[in-house]
Amino acid sequence: MYSLTVCDHIMVAHSFRGAAFGPAQRLHGATFAVEAEFRAPRLDPLNLLIDIGLAKAELRRILDTLDYNNLDELPALAGQNTTTEFMAQHIFTLLAQACRSGALGDGGRAVSGLKVLLRESPLAWAAYEGNLA
Amino acid sequence: MYSLTVCDHIMVAHSFRGAAFGPAQRLHGATFAVEAEFRAPRLDPLNLLIDIGLAKAELRRILDTLDYNNLDELPALAGQNTTTEFMAQHIFTLLAQACRSGALGDGGRAVSGLKVLLRESPLAWAAYEGNLA
Amino acid sequence: MYSLTVCDHIMVAHSFRGAAFGPAQRLHGATFAVEAEFRAPRLDPLNLLIDIGLAKAELRRILDTLDYNNLDELPALAGQNTTTEFMAQHIFTLLAQACRSGALGDGGRAVSGLKVLLRESPLAWAAYEGNLA
Amino acid sequence: MYSLTVCDHIMVAHSFRGAAFGPAQRLHGATFAVEAEFRAPRLDPLNLLIDIGLAKAELRRILDTLDYNNLDELPALAGQNTTTEFMAQHIFTLLAQACRSGALGDGGRAVSGLKVLLRESPLAWAAYEGNLA
Amino acid sequence: MYSLTVCDHIMVAHSFRGAAFGPAQRLHGATFAVEAEFRAPRLDPLNLLIDIGLAKAELRRILDTLDYNNLDELPALAGQNTTTEFMAQHIFTLLAQACRSGALGDGGRAVSGLKVLLRESPLAWAAYEGNLA
Amino acid sequence: MYSLTVCDHIMVAHSFRGAAFGPAQRLHGATFAVEAEFRAPRLDPLNLLIDIGLAKAELRRILDTLDYNNLDELPALAGQNTTTEFMAQHIFTLLAQACRSGALGDGGRAVSGLKVLLRESPLAWAAYEGNLA
Repeated sequence: MYSLTVCDHIMVAHSFRGAAFGPAQRLHGATFAVEAEFRAPRLDPLNLLIDIGLAKAELRRILDTLDYNNLDELPALAGQNTTTEFMAQHIFTLLAQACRSGALGDGGRAVSGLKVLLRESPLAWAAYEGNLA
Repeated sequence: MYSLTVCDHIMVAHSFRGAAFGPAQRLHGATFAVEAEFRAPRLDPLNLLIDIGLAKAELRRILDTLDYNNLDELPALAGQNTTTEFMAQHIFTLLAQACRSGALGDGGRAVSGLKVLLRESPLAWAAYEGNLA
Repeated sequence: MYSLTVCDHIMVAHSFRGAAFGPAQRLHGATFAVEAEFRAPRLDPLNLLIDIGLAKAELRRILDTLDYNNLDELPALAGQNTTTEFMAQHIFTLLAQACRSGALGDGGRAVSGLKVLLRESPLAWAAYEGNLA
Repeated sequence: MYSLTVCDHIMVAHSFRGAAFGPAQRLHGATFAVEAEFRAPRLDPLNLLIDIGLAKAELRRILDTLDYNNLDELPALAGQNTTTEFMAQHIFTLLAQACRSGALGDGGRAVSGLKVLLRESPLAWAAYEGNLA
Repeated sequence: MYSLTVCDHIMVAHSFRGAAFGPAQRLHGATFAVEAEFRAPRLDPLNLLIDIGLAKAELRRILDTLDYNNLDELPALAGQNTTTEFMAQHIFTLLAQACRSGALGDGGRAVSGLKVLLRESPLAWAAYEGNLA
Repeated sequence: MYSLTVCDHIMVAHSFRGAAFGPAQRLHGATFAVEAEFRAPRLDPLNLLIDIGLAKAELRRILDTLDYNNLDELPALAGQNTTTEFMAQHIFTLLAQACRSGALGDGGRAVSGLKVLLRESPLAWAAYEGNLA
């Protein structure tokens, strides 16, 4: 199995609801360093898993819907605690749609699995991974 | 599949038995940077895989049994070469028990898999991973 | 010249005033990984520049005044754009006061210089450094 | 499942054929930081997955066939676009042969899986992983 | 003294002349991760050392003259061994010119010192630093 | 001013004397990642600050006097608390001697300053720097 990973980051504000969050119930923020891993069992005739330029551009387009925002105010995230693990799944879903839609070319359509990992600090990170139908 | 990883570290002395270890048969030491990855197929109603505060505290409690010690003298490790791969499995076992015992709350009981990775230097690391029954 | 550096981090929300900031004028956030470097020309009789436990605790106490907050609402920062370079200087000032006040022990009083570096993303950071009178 | 990873790096020139590569069609180069992960379900009586000295030496021997070269001129890679994902698979194949041949000792023969990951920049990397028969 | 650092990277081919270089006399390549540090004794009224957007764009413009090239063939580098330390000084010179020319705005004209650091591998890097007149 | 840095690491045991050290009074250990920075105002005719191969070999030779040892038992360190800041100064002294002795060639004799930095964990490091006469 091959994999290719590209990285980017976003800087967002948010707050959490629930006593379990302690001081994180206050409005605060995070830099999320985002690693998007694309998996496929074989490469194309150019020896590429995916067009890395398209992958970076599409990841950036998705992150632009979140970057420099207060996540508490985004309609797409209404009613959700935007934990790191939830945000990994949210970005995974958008990236999976991009693969299936053809936005990442034939390479994207051939992607068999994805993993999105978000680092919230040097000491903690979360990820969501799954297969693409 | 979701995952959440928290990090900590320990500073220990130890020595190895067996000619294969060369100079590492002498008493020496290591900083082990420890990454504990918790896996689960779904999040709780707060969008958490696990209470990250409990996870850090329980990992710290386990590491306190090792930190600032000479591993050669710990009864729990008697007769073992405390290689990085062995120590990863040792910490995995203690963390798996903590999940099952309820020390990490309902989130801990729902953890379906664990991976413990120990970095011994910038150029070498080892891990142990497995499913929780 | 000796130096000793300890690290910690904070997760904060803020916004900037000024067209030069573009989308960063919106409320957003950041994880600031904080590196505090203490400098001195000599060590104490125990071969310590500073008590590292005191240094970590005092840095944590200072960061607790910022962590999990919206910097726009903190009276201590009123009227300021809380850029990374400004925040480095802000933490430097508090840490310099701690050194001079004796909160870091005799080692802290002997510190001749400080540098506070804040990483806002994997690709950008800022610092403030100066001598202590 | 246990894993042990060792790291090294190579510095190579190469060029790509195909309009999709844009400016990377020109002769350019890369530092590939190489991470070789060996997997096995159990450790040997010394608590080792593999002899780490043999693993480093064998990885180095394989990388010496590539290091400080123009990949475009190496017969072993003739007619191939030497993308990061392809190079990961190329090194995987050589390392898998080394495991099976006995060059990594009994530990190498017991290796059940391998992953080779190549970092081409701080923001992009690729890997190839598979089981050993 | 304040400092602000932005990062980028280039992927280049080159070769060295001189027996001291051993196998690096062959055409090979490198990823240079580039860190550009701008220094100034004070911030502007917005609390900025420099416009980070302009700084990134100008660094990118300079790196575009090198990226995805064989340095042996660039007229600007003719007759030079393009060692990491030399390349740091080369980029420093171009960035210093950009500061003085006004390409980085008033903040750039107020920059009093620069440091350019190039990482050639995880284990080696070089830098050039100096004051701006 | 130019600088060139090479990295290596050691794995050592040691203990500290003094109640201030708390649990670190017990025999424990550390991986010290070592960064040796050589500084000089100009390069040689090959555009080198120093022969990087000689620098790595000489650093390794110095580190071999410490690596895989219990520092408490080394005559060269008798009566010393081997804190990270002290060890940085110890390695600095040996490396400065190597520069002056000619072991690093003409480049080593032209080195005007040195900095030795030791990382003891992901969250703490110490350094010693000075000019060479």
